[in-house]
Amino acid sequence: MGKRTLLSFSPQIKVIDATLRDGGLVNNFYFEDDFVKKLYQMNIQAGIDYMEFGYKASSEIFDKNKFGKWKFCDEKDLRDIVGNNDTDLKISVMADVGRTNIDRDIIPKDESVIDMVRVASYINTIPAALEMVENCSKKGYETAVNIMAISHANESDLQEALDLIGNSSADGVYLVDSYGSLYPEQTRKLADKYLNMGAKYNKFVGIHAHNNQQLAFANTIDAVACGVNYLDATVNSLGRGAGNCPLELLIGFLKNPKYKLHPILKFIEEEMLQLKKSGVVWGYDIPYLITGVLDRHPSGAIECIKKGRTDYANIYLELMGLE
Amino acid sequence: MGKRTLLSFSPQIKVIDATLRDGGLVNNFYFEDDFVKKLYQMNIQAGIDYMEFGYKASSEIFDKNKFGKWKFCDEKDLRDIVGNNDTDLKISVMADVGRTNIDRDIIPKDESVIDMVRVASYINTIPAALEMVENCSKKGYETAVNIMAISHANESDLQEALDLIGNSSADGVYLVDSYGSLYPEQTRKLADKYLNMGAKYNKFVGIHAHNNQQLAFANTIDAVACGVNYLDATVNSLGRGAGNCPLELLIGFLKNPKYKLHPILKFIEEEMLQLKKSGVVWGYDIPYLITGVLDRHPSGAIECIKKGRTDYANIYLELMGLE
Repeated sequence: MGKRTLLSFSPQIKVIDATLRDGGLVNNFYFEDDFVKKLYQMNIQAGIDYMEFGYKASSEIFDKNKFGKWKFCDEKDLRDIVGNNDTDLKISVMADVGRTNIDRDIIPKDESVIDMVRVASYINTIPAALEMVENCSKKGYETAVNIMAISHANESDLQEALDLIGNSSADGVYLVDSYGSLYPEQTRKLADKYLNMGAKYNKFVGIHAHNNQQLAFANTIDAVACGVNYLDATVNSLGRGAGNCPLELLIGFLKNPKYKLHPILKFIEEEMLQLKKSGVVWGYDIPYLITGVLDRHPSGAIECIKKGRTDYANIYLELMGLE
Repeated sequence: MGKRTLLSFSPQIKVIDATLRDGGLVNNFYFEDDFVKKLYQMNIQAGIDYMEFGYKASSEIFDKNKFGKWKFCDEKDLRDIVGNNDTDLKISVMADVGRTNIDRDIIPKDESVIDMVRVASYINTIPAALEMVENCSKKGYETAVNIMAISHANESDLQEALDLIGNSSADGVYLVDSYGSLYPEQTRKLADKYLNMGAKYNKFVGIHAHNNQQLAFANTIDAVACGVNYLDATVNSLGRGAGNCPLELLIGFLKNPKYKLHPILKFIEEEMLQLKKSGVVWGYDIPYLITGVLDRHPSGAIECIKKGRTDYANIYLELMGLE
C-alpha cells in the first residue's frame, strides 16, 4: 500500500462525523434540535465530508416513544435540520442488519437528502448486509459495510467476508474496532488486508475506532498512513462507552487546508461542555480499559459506570470471570 | 531493529514508574508519606522495575520550604520509605542540568539506596549532562540521559548528541516527547535512530511520552515494537499538563507475566481517586491538544486550565499567536 508522509495530504481522505449516531447510543438519541443544527453548521464550517445523523431503525422493532428521532432518521426530521442540504457536506445514516425495514424506510435517493447508507453487520450476517447494500445501491445511495467486532473474527472468515463485499455493489468497507481492543500494530495489519481487497475490487476502506485503551486516534492515524481514506470521528469522543476517535484530534492532524479546527473547538466550548454537565456520561475510564484489555464488549464496563462503581480491582477480577 | 510480536515478551523490557517525579511537577512534590509508601508497595507487587522518586534538586536554587521533599530526594527521606530497599524494585532519581549540586548531593552508590540517576537535558546542554553522567557513573550508579523536547531538535544536532552520549559512560538514553506533539510515525523513526546508536555503543534506549494528543500510550508501545526497552509511565497518567503514558494501560499491554495489573487498579481506586478529588489537576484536556498540535511547551495550556478558561477557540487563536 502507498505510504503517506506527514506533511502531504490526500484529497481522497474523507472525514465522517459520527457524533450523533454513536453519541445517540449514550443518550438514546435525545439531542435537542438546536444542538443538531449547530453540529450541522460546525461540520460545514470545519470542512467535514459526511455527517452521520443516526440510524434507520425500524419502528416495528423500536418504540418511537422510547428513543429520540435520530434513532429513526425520518426524512422529514432530517429536512427540518438541513433543508435540501445545498452544501458540500454529505449526509449519512446507519442501518443495522435485522433492525431496519429497508423496503419501507429507505426511499429512492432522488427523494432523499441522504447520500450514504452504511450497513452495520457482524461477520456472520454479511450476506444479509449485502442484500441491504444491493437494495440501497439500486435506489441510488453510496453504500458501505461496517464489519463490527473485528477483533473476534478469525482470519479466514474475514478474508471470505471481504471477498463477498468486494464482489457486491458496496462502495466501501469499514474496519470497526468495536471493543477498543486493537493495538496499532494489529490495526496496521488489518488495514493492509482491507486495502488489498479495496485495491482488487475498487472499494474504499474506512476505519471506526473506539477509545477504551486511549488508542482510537492512534489507530485512526496509523490506518491513514497505511492508505485508509474514510475516517470516523466524533466531537469530544462522544460515543458508546469510552467513545470514539476525537474529531478535534483528527482535524488537528490532517493536513488538508480545507479542514478547520476552530469551529470544532467553538462547538466544544458552547455545546459539549453543557452536554457533559447535563449528565451524559462517556469517555475513557478505567472500566473501559479493562474490557479493552480483555477484548470484551464494553457493556460490562458501562454497567459498572452507571452504578458509580470505582472498585476497579474487583471489576477486573469479575470481568475476567474469576469472581 | 528487531521487530517484536504481540504475543511474546522481552525480558529486557524495564518499566519505570515516574508517578512521583513527573506528578511532583503538578503538586510541587507535596505527596503524603502514606501515598508514597503505598505507591512503593504497589510497584513491588506489580513487578515494576524502577520507581523514580523525584528530583535531586539543589537546595541553593530551590527553597526547601516551597517544595515537598521529593524535589530533593534526600537519602534520609528515601530510607524512611524504603528502608534498605531489599526488593527487586530499583530506585531512580532525576537530576536536571544546572539545577543539581552533584558533588554534594549525589553520594557514593554504596552509601545510597538509589540505583539509577537520570540526567534531564535539552539538546544544547548535552556536554554538561555528560559531565554529570561521568560523575554519577564513577560513583557507581546506573545512568541515563533524557534528551527533552526532541520534537524541536534538528536531525543533525540529534545525531551529534546521540554520538556524544554513545561515547560517554551513560548506560542509556531516552527519547522524550516533552510537548506531546509526536505522532507514532515520527516516534518510530526517532526510535530507530536512537536504537541504531544504542546498538553501536551498547546503550539501552528508553521512551518518556506525554499525553497531549492522547498518544502517550500509542507512542510508547510503538517504540516497544521497534525495540525500545525502558518505558516510562505513571499511574493514571499523573504528570505535568496532559500527563504521561498511563501505567495501567502499559501493564495491560505487556505480556511478561511478572507484571500485574491488579495492584495498580487497587492503588487507583484507593489513592488516585482521592488525589483527584483533593484538587490536583492533570490529564488530557482541550488546551493540551492545542499545544500538542502546535508543538509548544504546555505552559500556556497549564495557565489556561489554572484560570478555568474554557474558551477553547480563543485559546487556539492566542496560542497560535493570532490574537
